[in-house]
Amino acid sequence: MLYSKSFINTSRENPKVAECQSHRLLLKGSFLYMVSSGIYSYLPLGWRVLNKINDIIRQEMDSAGAQELLMSALQPIDIWKKTGRDKDLEEVMFRFKDRKKRELCLGPTHEEEITEIVKRYISSYKQLPFTLYQIQAKFRDEPRPRFGLMRSSEFIMKDAYSFDLGREGLEENYQKMFEAYKKIFRRFELDCVIVEADSGAMGGSVSHEFMVPAEIGEDILYFCQVCGKYYREKEKCSSCAGIAEPVKTVEVGHIFQLGTKYSQAQDAFVLGRQGEKVSLVMGCYGIGVSRVLASVAEVSSDKKGLIWPKSITPFEAIFLVLDETKTEEIIAIADSLESKGFSLLVDERKEPAGVKFNDAYLIGSPYIIIIGKNYQKSGKIEVEERKSGLSHQISPDKLIDFLKSEYRR
Amino acid sequence: MLYSKSFINTSRENPKVAECQSHRLLLKGSFLYMVSSGIYSYLPLGWRVLNKINDIIRQEMDSAGAQELLMSALQPIDIWKKTGRDKDLEEVMFRFKDRKKRELCLGPTHEEEITEIVKRYISSYKQLPFTLYQIQAKFRDEPRPRFGLMRSSEFIMKDAYSFDLGREGLEENYQKMFEAYKKIFRRFELDCVIVEADSGAMGGSVSHEFMVPAEIGEDILYFCQVCGKYYREKEKCSSCAGIAEPVKTVEVGHIFQLGTKYSQAQDAFVLGRQGEKVSLVMGCYGIGVSRVLASVAEVSSDKKGLIWPKSITPFEAIFLVLDETKTEEIIAIADSLESKGFSLLVDERKEPAGVKFNDAYLIGSPYIIIIGKNYQKSGKIEVEERKSGLSHQISPDKLIDFLKSEYRR
Repeated sequence: MLYSKSFINTSRENPKVAECQSHRLLLKGSFLYMVSSGIYSYLPLGWRVLNKINDIIRQEMDSAGAQELLMSALQPIDIWKKTGRDKDLEEVMFRFKDRKKRELCLGPTHEEEITEIVKRYISSYKQLPFTLYQIQAKFRDEPRPRFGLMRSSEFIMKDAYSFDLGREGLEENYQKMFEAYKKIFRRFELDCVIVEADSGAMGGSVSHEFMVPAEIGEDILYFCQVCGKYYREKEKCSSCAGIAEPVKTVEVGHIFQLGTKYSQAQDAFVLGRQGEKVSLVMGCYGIGVSRVLASVAEVSSDKKGLIWPKSITPFEAIFLVLDETKTEEIIAIADSLESKGFSLLVDERKEPAGVKFNDAYLIGSPYIIIIGKNYQKSGKIEVEERKSGLSHQISPDKLIDFLKSEYRR
Repeated sequence: MLYSKSFINTSRENPKVAECQSHRLLLKGSFLYMVSSGIYSYLPLGWRVLNKINDIIRQEMDSAGAQELLMSALQPIDIWKKTGRDKDLEEVMFRFKDRKKRELCLGPTHEEEITEIVKRYISSYKQLPFTLYQIQAKFRDEPRPRFGLMRSSEFIMKDAYSFDLGREGLEENYQKMFEAYKKIFRRFELDCVIVEADSGAMGGSVSHEFMVPAEIGEDILYFCQVCGKYYREKEKCSSCAGIAEPVKTVEVGHIFQLGTKYSQAQDAFVLGRQGEKVSLVMGCYGIGVSRVLASVAEVSSDKKGLIWPKSITPFEAIFLVLDETKTEEIIAIADSLESKGFSLLVDERKEPAGVKFNDAYLIGSPYIIIIGKNYQKSGKIEVEERKSGLSHQISPDKLIDFLKSEYRR
């Protein structure tokens, strides 16, 4: 990808609407466009990151045996009346009527709809267990949309739902998802704190939250410096002599053992081994996909700009061509690397070096490859590794090995 | 993928709600679930097809130099007031207010939003040309939702938008998209008729529709048996002696040379070479993604069931294990093929052969691989090629070569 042809439009100024580090960096780097308060569009740079996040989630969900589907965003209110959540979630639901006076809402979540779907097809214990998931835009009429993608009216979520014959199966599936979540957040390089949590409006008993410590977090946990553990409530640490300090965190994932709350309300059952009616035992597993994007941006930057984890960077490396006479040569090198599966940006614009560096930092690639005036003499190009700050001098024919080794391919 | 673990739930009965062949087959094969009239969820089988359709579109859009982004579904009504389309599209818009009384709609299309985005970032002719696209759920309050995905209230669309300095650039970009569209529909094995068309509510001058002839089509074209050409209106064929017969067609793609309708109304301009204000010259390019899925199902089936094109089949082959003692052996063969990039379904259920065949036909894989009782003796398995009806006897170690050759890999 050539910079001059790309829809990358970084800004020098700090956007006035920015409410926190990630919001500022994502707007400034042209990852995001603010349509209106709490409503965002993903520009090509942001889309590239989002797409990589989605890919990782899909890989781990599929390896855990979950199957992908895609539910409707429009939902009839009728199905919500069965669980009473048309009332519980009334405040955050976008609700309206169509031209035939049919009452609809935009799905803020999909427990009711998935239960209807499963009920339609599943009638015997032999068809169990299974887990279904989707990645989809969800809608909530937030009282206070804040911090960009952290709390927005339209956001992207991965929601998975497991269906079992009994408690034991649920626990097994829950454990599988728990492990998959740990892998997923590790791949995002997010140091998640995992805490047992309230089930709240979702119902059910056991539930775990995956939280990223961050200054702008709206969830307060207590961190005990002696135990080294996190707690939901301060009093819980009374057993230990340490001082529990409040820590702000952002929730990026939440998994629930729902049990039979939805299946009972919606009459979703199977016939068991003895022909008896058994309500489906459900679990649900959410990841705030767009919030992950913002959280990574929040915790992964320095004074210069963003530093994306290798797994979700929009470009694996950015070439800064500072010697115009080398442009064609560098494009040829980049083309050959792209044919080997790397996604690269070549900044061949006629701009001062300072502008190019600044933009590369705003884009946040982990590797910046500098082709300066001394390349002619030395035959070496410089690779700046953003995270470590280290600089490597390498010859262009060694670049493929360097990238393969850094990206473990 | 093992059938017994999959969320495939075919039905023997013809669904009562089905209004046409594709609707019937997609419901019966458990590709789709009807949430409510005009609202559908894509079950895992349908999602697999949809995903392959999206991949092909992305490949061809990217090769044509377009860049992907993802806009919001929620849109403020304000931007629609600028072009007056809040009135033109009033009837089909889902429109509502949020808790702060902000007037919103669900995007039935995105010309206004993309123009706002581009206007925000583009100020010089040097930044032109470029083409942006997205694949996204769109919403229209249809007066008569019909034929399943053919005309639904929530549907998936690929919409692309080109931006140029002048007419000439637009024509060049339009031509590029025109060629990309031909490639895309060819890859779907859809024999599209391309006709010049009215621009209607979109505005602009030149426009072409990509139409699939089908009995349930709601658009009538006229086919001249002498010219061999299609026309929008009957009188247009007056120059030729042939008899123009009416043909029903389904619109799967529509491309428009919009010109400056939106950029003028929304004040989206750049400074040209002499520092003069130049309104952006736009084109827009739509593909009804979910309608493509339905159209393929509509034209690609026989009495037995669906026959997906190789490019978008949910499974490249289905193994029917009719000799239980061979189950493990076949799973091992399938695993090794999957490791080479084929997606396969192994039907290892304890069901009669007739049930397995019927389900394989409903799922619609182009190749059905039968492991019958005589495999023990002959060492050969049978491959039924659905489209030609041909049957091949091959030994399992030749299967990889067979599939590679059939799928041209």
